[in-house]
Amino acid sequence: MKIGVLLHGNGVYDGTEIHEAVLTLLALAEVGAETVCLAPNIDQFHVVNHVTGEEMTETRNVLVESARIARGTIRDLASLTSDELDALVMPGGFGTAKNFTRWAFEGPNGPIFEPVRKLIVDMVRLKKPVVGLCMSPTTIAKALEGSGISAHLTVGTDLEDSPYDIAGIAGGMESLGQKAEMKSVREILVDHENRIITAPCYMMDASILEIRDNIKQAIEQMVALLEPAETAA
Amino acid sequence: MKIGVLLHGNGVYDGTEIHEAVLTLLALAEVGAETVCLAPNIDQFHVVNHVTGEEMTETRNVLVESARIARGTIRDLASLTSDELDALVMPGGFGTAKNFTRWAFEGPNGPIFEPVRKLIVDMVRLKKPVVGLCMSPTTIAKALEGSGISAHLTVGTDLEDSPYDIAGIAGGMESLGQKAEMKSVREILVDHENRIITAPCYMMDASILEIRDNIKQAIEQMVALLEPAETAA
Repeated sequence: MKIGVLLHGNGVYDGTEIHEAVLTLLALAEVGAETVCLAPNIDQFHVVNHVTGEEMTETRNVLVESARIARGTIRDLASLTSDELDALVMPGGFGTAKNFTRWAFEGPNGPIFEPVRKLIVDMVRLKKPVVGLCMSPTTIAKALEGSGISAHLTVGTDLEDSPYDIAGIAGGMESLGQKAEMKSVREILVDHENRIITAPCYMMDASILEIRDNIKQAIEQMVALLEPAETAA
Repeated sequence: MKIGVLLHGNGVYDGTEIHEAVLTLLALAEVGAETVCLAPNIDQFHVVNHVTGEEMTETRNVLVESARIARGTIRDLASLTSDELDALVMPGGFGTAKNFTRWAFEGPNGPIFEPVRKLIVDMVRLKKPVVGLCMSPTTIAKALEGSGISAHLTVGTDLEDSPYDIAGIAGGMESLGQKAEMKSVREILVDHENRIITAPCYMMDASILEIRDNIKQAIEQMVALLEPAETAA
C-alpha cells in the first residue's frame, strides 16, 4: 500500500492540523502502509500567530512548512499523479480551506487549487480510497462540484459541541451537489460507492485520544476498502 | 497529574521534533495526565528550510511557533515555576540544542538559557520526574553542570544506526559531570535517584512506531515514579 498524505502547511489556523497529520502517519504505519507526504509548492494564503490568532505580516510556503511535519521527506504535489498512489489521506486544519480552497473566507463558491482538484477527482474516478479528516471534506466537496459525482460526506454533527458552524458547512457541501451527513467524533462516514471516508476529528470539541481513535478507525476502513480489490486482482 | 511539556519551536531542524511532541501529548492523555505546554518567549536561534536544510533569512519566535503544536493552548515559560508541575517532559528536536543551549554549534561548553536551566534543576531537586527525549538529555546535562547532581542519561547507542555522533554527544555529557549510557530506541534509561528518564527516540534511525513505543514506555515509567509518592502522601 502506497498512501499519499496531502498536507497544506503546518498549524491548525493557517495550515495542516498537526495532531491529525502525525496521528495519520502513525495510523498508516500501524497498518504497514508506505507513506508519501505531499504538498504544493505555493505560498500560504496567510500566516496566523497561533498564540494571538492574529495575522502576521510574513509569507510562508506550503511545501516548505509541510516539510516540518514530514521531517524533510516530502514530495512536491506537482511531481506525482494518482497513478502512483493506492489511496489518499487528507488531514484537516484550516489550510485546506485557505490554501486549497478559499472556503474559510468565501464559502463553497470560492475557487479551488487545480492540482488538488484534479488529484481528488482522479482518485475518486479510479475508485482509489480518499480519506478526508476534519475540514478536508469541504475540499473534497469543492473538487467534486460539477463532476457528476455526488458523495456522502461529514464534517461533524450539530448535536454535540463544536467550535464551528457544522450545519452551515454541511449546507455549503450540499450546495455543491454533495450529500452531507452528521457524525460524531466517535464515528466515521463511509461512502462505499465512491470509496470516500470522512471523519470529523477536531471539527468537534474533542481530546487527542478521540482524534487518535477517529483517525485509526478511518485508516482501518481505508485498508478494508483496499483489501477486496487486492484479493480480486 | 499536571505535566509540563517544554517546547522549543515547531520542526526538527530548528525547533521541537513534531512527531515526538504530538506522541508525548498522546501518551500523556492515555495515562490521564493534565498537560501544560510551555515555551519561552524568545527568538529562535535561526530558521531552517526543512526541504533543503538551508538557513532562511527570517526570524521566528519560540513561543509563537510552539503554539502551533499546542493548538494555541500554551503558557509562556516565564509565567510558571516548578511548584505548579508534577513532572516535566522535554521532547526532542534540534531546538533544544539551538534555542535552549548552543550545543548544536558550540557543544557542551556553550551557554544555556537561564529559565530552562532553573526549571530543570528545580524539578530535579524537588524529586519531580523529568523526561528527556531524543536530544533533550544534552540540555538536562548542561542544566545540571556544576549543580552537584550527576545523573545517568542516554541519547542513544553507537551500536545501532543513527544519523548522529552518539558517542561524541555522550562524551560531551560526561564532560559536564553526567554519566552517559548507551540505549537503543527500544529502551529507556531510568535514573531512579534523580527521577530522570531519558529515551533516544529520533536520535536513532527509527520509525514513527518505534518513537510512539519509546515515548509511551517513558511516560508510563514517569507515572510509575509518581505513583509511590502519591500513595505515600
